[in-house]
Amino acid sequence: MKKKLVIKLSGKVFAIEETKKLKDYATFFVKKSKICQPIIIAGGGKIARYFINHARSSGADESTLDELGIEISRLNARLLIYALKGKAYPHPPTNLTEVKLAVDSGLIVVTGGLHPGQSTNATAALIAEKVHATEFLNATDVDGIYDSDPNKNKNAKKFKRIELKNLRNLLVHEDSVAGGYDLMDIVALKVIERSKIKTRIIKSDIKTIEKAMKGLSTGTEIILPN
Amino acid sequence: MKKKLVIKLSGKVFAIEETKKLKDYATFFVKKSKICQPIIIAGGGKIARYFINHARSSGADESTLDELGIEISRLNARLLIYALKGKAYPHPPTNLTEVKLAVDSGLIVVTGGLHPGQSTNATAALIAEKVHATEFLNATDVDGIYDSDPNKNKNAKKFKRIELKNLRNLLVHEDSVAGGYDLMDIVALKVIERSKIKTRIIKSDIKTIEKAMKGLSTGTEIILPN
Amino acid sequence: MKKKLVIKLSGKVFAIEETKKLKDYATFFVKKSKICQPIIIAGGGKIARYFINHARSSGADESTLDELGIEISRLNARLLIYALKGKAYPHPPTNLTEVKLAVDSGLIVVTGGLHPGQSTNATAALIAEKVHATEFLNATDVDGIYDSDPNKNKNAKKFKRIELKNLRNLLVHEDSVAGGYDLMDIVALKVIERSKIKTRIIKSDIKTIEKAMKGLSTGTEIILPN
Amino acid sequence: MKKKLVIKLSGKVFAIEETKKLKDYATFFVKKSKICQPIIIAGGGKIARYFINHARSSGADESTLDELGIEISRLNARLLIYALKGKAYPHPPTNLTEVKLAVDSGLIVVTGGLHPGQSTNATAALIAEKVHATEFLNATDVDGIYDSDPNKNKNAKKFKRIELKNLRNLLVHEDSVAGGYDLMDIVALKVIERSKIKTRIIKSDIKTIEKAMKGLSTGTEIILPN
Amino acid sequence: MKKKLVIKLSGKVFAIEETKKLKDYATFFVKKSKICQPIIIAGGGKIARYFINHARSSGADESTLDELGIEISRLNARLLIYALKGKAYPHPPTNLTEVKLAVDSGLIVVTGGLHPGQSTNATAALIAEKVHATEFLNATDVDGIYDSDPNKNKNAKKFKRIELKNLRNLLVHEDSVAGGYDLMDIVALKVIERSKIKTRIIKSDIKTIEKAMKGLSTGTEIILPN
Amino acid sequence: MKKKLVIKLSGKVFAIEETKKLKDYATFFVKKSKICQPIIIAGGGKIARYFINHARSSGADESTLDELGIEISRLNARLLIYALKGKAYPHPPTNLTEVKLAVDSGLIVVTGGLHPGQSTNATAALIAEKVHATEFLNATDVDGIYDSDPNKNKNAKKFKRIELKNLRNLLVHEDSVAGGYDLMDIVALKVIERSKIKTRIIKSDIKTIEKAMKGLSTGTEIILPN
Repeated sequence: MKKKLVIKLSGKVFAIEETKKLKDYATFFVKKSKICQPIIIAGGGKIARYFINHARSSGADESTLDELGIEISRLNARLLIYALKGKAYPHPPTNLTEVKLAVDSGLIVVTGGLHPGQSTNATAALIAEKVHATEFLNATDVDGIYDSDPNKNKNAKKFKRIELKNLRNLLVHEDSVAGGYDLMDIVALKVIERSKIKTRIIKSDIKTIEKAMKGLSTGTEIILPN
Repeated sequence: MKKKLVIKLSGKVFAIEETKKLKDYATFFVKKSKICQPIIIAGGGKIARYFINHARSSGADESTLDELGIEISRLNARLLIYALKGKAYPHPPTNLTEVKLAVDSGLIVVTGGLHPGQSTNATAALIAEKVHATEFLNATDVDGIYDSDPNKNKNAKKFKRIELKNLRNLLVHEDSVAGGYDLMDIVALKVIERSKIKTRIIKSDIKTIEKAMKGLSTGTEIILPN
Repeated sequence: MKKKLVIKLSGKVFAIEETKKLKDYATFFVKKSKICQPIIIAGGGKIARYFINHARSSGADESTLDELGIEISRLNARLLIYALKGKAYPHPPTNLTEVKLAVDSGLIVVTGGLHPGQSTNATAALIAEKVHATEFLNATDVDGIYDSDPNKNKNAKKFKRIELKNLRNLLVHEDSVAGGYDLMDIVALKVIERSKIKTRIIKSDIKTIEKAMKGLSTGTEIILPN
Repeated sequence: MKKKLVIKLSGKVFAIEETKKLKDYATFFVKKSKICQPIIIAGGGKIARYFINHARSSGADESTLDELGIEISRLNARLLIYALKGKAYPHPPTNLTEVKLAVDSGLIVVTGGLHPGQSTNATAALIAEKVHATEFLNATDVDGIYDSDPNKNKNAKKFKRIELKNLRNLLVHEDSVAGGYDLMDIVALKVIERSKIKTRIIKSDIKTIEKAMKGLSTGTEIILPN
Repeated sequence: MKKKLVIKLSGKVFAIEETKKLKDYATFFVKKSKICQPIIIAGGGKIARYFINHARSSGADESTLDELGIEISRLNARLLIYALKGKAYPHPPTNLTEVKLAVDSGLIVVTGGLHPGQSTNATAALIAEKVHATEFLNATDVDGIYDSDPNKNKNAKKFKRIELKNLRNLLVHEDSVAGGYDLMDIVALKVIERSKIKTRIIKSDIKTIEKAMKGLSTGTEIILPN
Repeated sequence: MKKKLVIKLSGKVFAIEETKKLKDYATFFVKKSKICQPIIIAGGGKIARYFINHARSSGADESTLDELGIEISRLNARLLIYALKGKAYPHPPTNLTEVKLAVDSGLIVVTGGLHPGQSTNATAALIAEKVHATEFLNATDVDGIYDSDPNKNKNAKKFKRIELKNLRNLLVHEDSVAGGYDLMDIVALKVIERSKIKTRIIKSDIKTIEKAMKGLSTGTEIILPN
């Protein structure tokens, strides 16, 4: 049985302008699937934000907004599935039990969000736990975790490694929350902690993902407690 | 019981750039719902075409492409539902039986596509038949039916009224099909014919829709056989 | 992988008086399944017409009538499945996605109608497109396509081959519609055209079907445009 | 709240030859619905037997045969629903919970069988128990319970009233089983006993049902234990 | 293909106090699965009785009470499934069709109750019929069938073998019903009779089950009619 | 429209030994439903813990364990629904959309857990947000929040009021986590914060709940940021 690798993929990868990029990702994952089983969680990206903002301006409630984001992330997941052709499980699973069954098929699995009130990060961590993944790569729009918001603070310093406890402190305090970390990442951290899942936050970029998959240092690694 | 009015709404109305426009439509439909019950079928628009083209370039089959379009048209429908607030049935029905139940609530009903292999025009005609609508307004990107493609032929002439039989002939012959009328409109015509549904093709624009609702001449009216 | 052959089977094959005939068909399809994978769409026949006429006389709407026909065609499909014993997929799929999954099993697949507003002919064509069938045999109560209704016109002439464009013209004009071609065949034709599916209309009869499967001339072949 | 009356209706009422009869039943039930709420369980009749016998001859198992009978009884139920027009709950419930919800609507409810392995008699008794019906009328092809099979024994005597305990003895012993009482009637009896449901076996015929509804003596009444 | 063995397991096996016992059963069934395919129906036990009694005291109806019992029996089934680890079908089937599919997987199948109004005994018999089991072992809290209630009558005598007809007589008469045999056992008997299923009532105890599986005499065997 | 009050009820209330207590709760909620609409989230209690511990000892994964807890909490919810008789929505909703629909009925709503990976506390907070509740009462086994674990530290001091920010700090640091606050309470806090939900942690006890409903000081109130 191949090692299972969970990868959260930024919604940016699925942007309208980037049709070709997604096919490159597909080619990359097919190549990698010879040595491991990729399990990919697609983000929502700009189209998701459009639907969410529109609905929010009409007064829709938070869980409805989450549902819209989940729907778009699932359509994104389907685009990647089609690009992966016969190498992917044929549709995005919609809950943890379906994820488990899909992973049992041995194929590449691509899913979107699963549940309102849960960030795709938390979802990815729960999936990593459920399928006993050997590693969780969180591929985002930034290239790791900084001690302050790198978009606002020129001197922000990136951590190569950070203790889980310290990361939690960063996330809990308001100034860091303001830096754009969303509601449930603290949930993702708790799951990572209780199941001791090897986790790395990296830039969403094929070369960087490949580097991380080879075990080379890139982005920020979370140091788990013993 | 109020008269039921079926309106197919062009996907353009839901475009990312047009957030405000959709709210204007909502305000308009709420106002009109005092004198009739609007039943609205949302098109897919540009975002639907993005997902469809992307999936087609990966080799996805026709019914899969249809499903993607349906999913997006349903999300569009939900945006209009939220903008209509308490005046709309709370979610888009997904088949004819659900449409019927939703319409029985007396609220404004907004739906997207229902079934792969069926254009939203055909869907709208089937809905008009199912709920015994008094009229079907097909609000599109052009302002009526022309004797040739108005985008290519400067001298194309718009019909104020056209006999159903003649419209069918236009649709069947290849040169008109090339003008962009899609696969199933011939189905819509058959439904209109068998159930003698009063039908008008008009420009998707609030003023034009209002004019048509008042019974004033606009766009192209289909003359039904006796 | 065996070639896939889609066969629309007249409802007559499932008639109450013909229990033995259905078993002969089963034996025939099992024999043929050694060299190809039959995918069979069962019609509704006399019992479907009974339920439909009864409901119509009570004022039921068109899509409800279609649903009754679909239910009976599915029960017919089940009878053929039981007669095929272990050689058939164990139940009739109810939508295109399920049809695809069923066909992937490699077993003989038997289905009924799929969707209100769609003739079993159109359904069969959509299935042929979905599963990339090599041929679509439309086995009906008449032995091919005639230039006028053979039941009314003694001198009606059968076409051995007919261009798709000409067949469409026949179907669209009212006099031919009166000859009993139902609502959606024009849809079937469009699907056949867009996906260039090899199609033959033949008599529903084991010997004739076998002849057609061997590539011998029988019934009417539709000539596809280049 | 009106009294609830459960009526098991013989499949014969739905026979192909009897289209008009079913409409008479509908008119009758609508009239009666002003003073009570009829809850009707449709039998399967001849068409059900056709499907069952056909499938049995192909070796289908007992629960599959039951499913076929249930499907046809539900289609029969739908015919009666259409004939009752707006006065009936719009579709046949498919399990006891749905039956309860349907009955809560106050409309006439028509259902078919519910579950493989359960006769429509037992189903009717369970429904009577679930909805706290005031009476259960079992309208069959014979006009009551006899001490031996009236088709074989000229001198068979009909009971006007029979103690539940004695009826059970009749049903359990083989000679009576041979008289055509089916598998689960003993189940119906147990339900009638535990919930003390007033029960009468009568001929399926409008006049007889009306007589029974008026409390006049007809058919066979089951005497419940104290 | 291995022989299929249906075992109804007393709810007592799943008691809170007996965590270890259930694991012993799991070990036992895994060992036996090398020579046959066990299909196990879990009873509800004390926790089921708690929920049922509580709901009954609030006036819940009989089918609701049955549903509560079924839910608990399914949770019991899941406990056994987890203890069987990869050797069991991953969840309890919820109707006969799902049971059939689960059994086709070749794995050990564990299910709870299936349907309100049906005892787990009757359910087990229907499952044995559906999957063509070679034997049905009914493992209960007593060690066989007695001529009177062994808890009340010191001199009650156990049958080593009993004719089905005689057992039915015992069950039907009130004094035996009072001995605690529940509503539907007469249904189980009818199924056993019509499909001639080899059946034995034994004590729920690993050693006794093993003895019965080896064909040794234990408990009470039901003698089937020719 | 009455004010909506969300109450998380400790699983202890549903304990086997406490049948009467649950009826007292039902009587209490019915009385209170004249002035507000109670929406109750049932915990799992001892039976849930039994199933969870048993499954964990067999190696079941975390989300499976959560599902077991959710199932039992739903059965608990049903017991309260039965005890509330006609005053409660007839079954426990299983997701946020269903909760919303149930609350729209105006009846008392009782639900269990909704989703694996989410504590019943977080679920209750999300429900309070979704239905725009005026207050969230978290009725637990302890009588408020302490500065250290009251079971271990005699001198632990209860907060009458605590700032949300300070509570979050308590929850995040390991020593307080060890005090038994479960995984997702931090999620509940975030929801309470973003939607500014008035929240109080109190002892699960009818008198205390009544006191809190009257606005009297009891347990610990969370002070929301401006």
